[in-house]
Amino acid sequence: MNSPVASQNAFSDAERRGVYRAVFERRDIRNQFLPTPVPDDVLGRILLAAHHAPSVGFMQPWDFILIRDVALRTNVRNNFLEANRQAAQRYQGEQRTLYDSLKLEGILEAPLNLCVTCDRTRNLGSGLGRQTVLETDLYSTVCAIQNLWLAARAESLGVGWVSILDHDQLRSILEIPSHVTPVAYLCIGYVSEFPAAPELERKGWCRREALARLIHFDRWGRQDDAFAAQLDSPAEVGLSLNSVQQSLDG
Amino acid sequence: MNSPVASQNAFSDAERRGVYRAVFERRDIRNQFLPTPVPDDVLGRILLAAHHAPSVGFMQPWDFILIRDVALRTNVRNNFLEANRQAAQRYQGEQRTLYDSLKLEGILEAPLNLCVTCDRTRNLGSGLGRQTVLETDLYSTVCAIQNLWLAARAESLGVGWVSILDHDQLRSILEIPSHVTPVAYLCIGYVSEFPAAPELERKGWCRREALARLIHFDRWGRQDDAFAAQLDSPAEVGLSLNSVQQSLDG
Repeated sequence: MNSPVASQNAFSDAERRGVYRAVFERRDIRNQFLPTPVPDDVLGRILLAAHHAPSVGFMQPWDFILIRDVALRTNVRNNFLEANRQAAQRYQGEQRTLYDSLKLEGILEAPLNLCVTCDRTRNLGSGLGRQTVLETDLYSTVCAIQNLWLAARAESLGVGWVSILDHDQLRSILEIPSHVTPVAYLCIGYVSEFPAAPELERKGWCRREALARLIHFDRWGRQDDAFAAQLDSPAEVGLSLNSVQQSLDG
Repeated sequence: MNSPVASQNAFSDAERRGVYRAVFERRDIRNQFLPTPVPDDVLGRILLAAHHAPSVGFMQPWDFILIRDVALRTNVRNNFLEANRQAAQRYQGEQRTLYDSLKLEGILEAPLNLCVTCDRTRNLGSGLGRQTVLETDLYSTVCAIQNLWLAARAESLGVGWVSILDHDQLRSILEIPSHVTPVAYLCIGYVSEFPAAPELERKGWCRREALARLIHFDRWGRQDDAFAAQLDSPAEVGLSLNSVQQSLDG
């Protein structure tokens, strides 16, 4: 650790490895949910992690609707089925066959569903930081979701984000008022496994882009292939991540 | 660890603590940047963490513009100064005095700036999952930003998100094309300290909301104060987090 920060702020190798494991081993889970209930203390911890996300002007615009009721979840699943039926029509031929073979939600299999919302009118931060980009409250809410997703992985919990939903219908099912935007509908539960790669990559829907192609220097489009490749080199991931890489490869 | 998941997927206590430390000790840094350069291997790791965020349909809509050029950063800072001058006019009296005393960016002090963008037209995922909620590509980009922010904390790097910018001007300064949306402008560098609480809380701009007030059961507005308080109890954070809490209190 060559950081100049005071040593009490530095992470141990194992703590740092934990952060990278959560990042690299997090998956969008649809197929692998187990019915095992999520204990309250674990649920409390991942919600607390969400609540400690950054937010514009310390606005904390998020709310958390915990959904266990099976009738409600069945309504949400019916919403998904209709939205997905329409979405599938975009694809034809082999791509349609592949699309139809994908499992894109685990609404009923997961023991817990969670809708994370954004109150566009919450005045906690008095609008600080939000006057130039109005969407920053939505962005803050997504930061909370990603905190929860990573904390969940550290607790061996899987999370799946169901984006194929009619949000007007979802709002109606969950009685969400008009000034509140549903941002994510999540399925949460223990899993039989965390797959080594994203399902859409394993099934051949698309591949992971090379990071080096996404790096620009000082201005958009100014690329430096050699330097970008150096930043993207697996060798650069460092000793402490070798075990992560091995566990992904194994 | 009472998880039913195979033990090779479980995190050690130290790894799990690392994730929660990153979540609870992450700060939006404006004041504490040091000029120490960020080594390429560390930069590569936090970008790789960003690139491993979840994305709708595996779309990976993000790009990363690394900005070190001082003239460009000065242009961006001038953009901030004008946007902030206008934003300040919203506040009056004591609140205005407090607003004017806040330092809201570290554009020139941080050795590295990073603009994270979202290519709204990227077709990697063939639109999967994005037909019902068009903004999911922006949300994916924010997941990448939060991954980077937490990985940065594990590397003892501070990150500050500058949201008070005219994004049309920013687009012009960085030559970002019209189909690409700037999502975040980040300042990145080592820090003299990670403050124990957010600056806006310490300065009295606003307080952290009680998590329990933000939890709903099955439908919006159905609250259960006793159960929500139990989920929000510090005692529920668990043994492995005691050291985190102590370091935050200390």
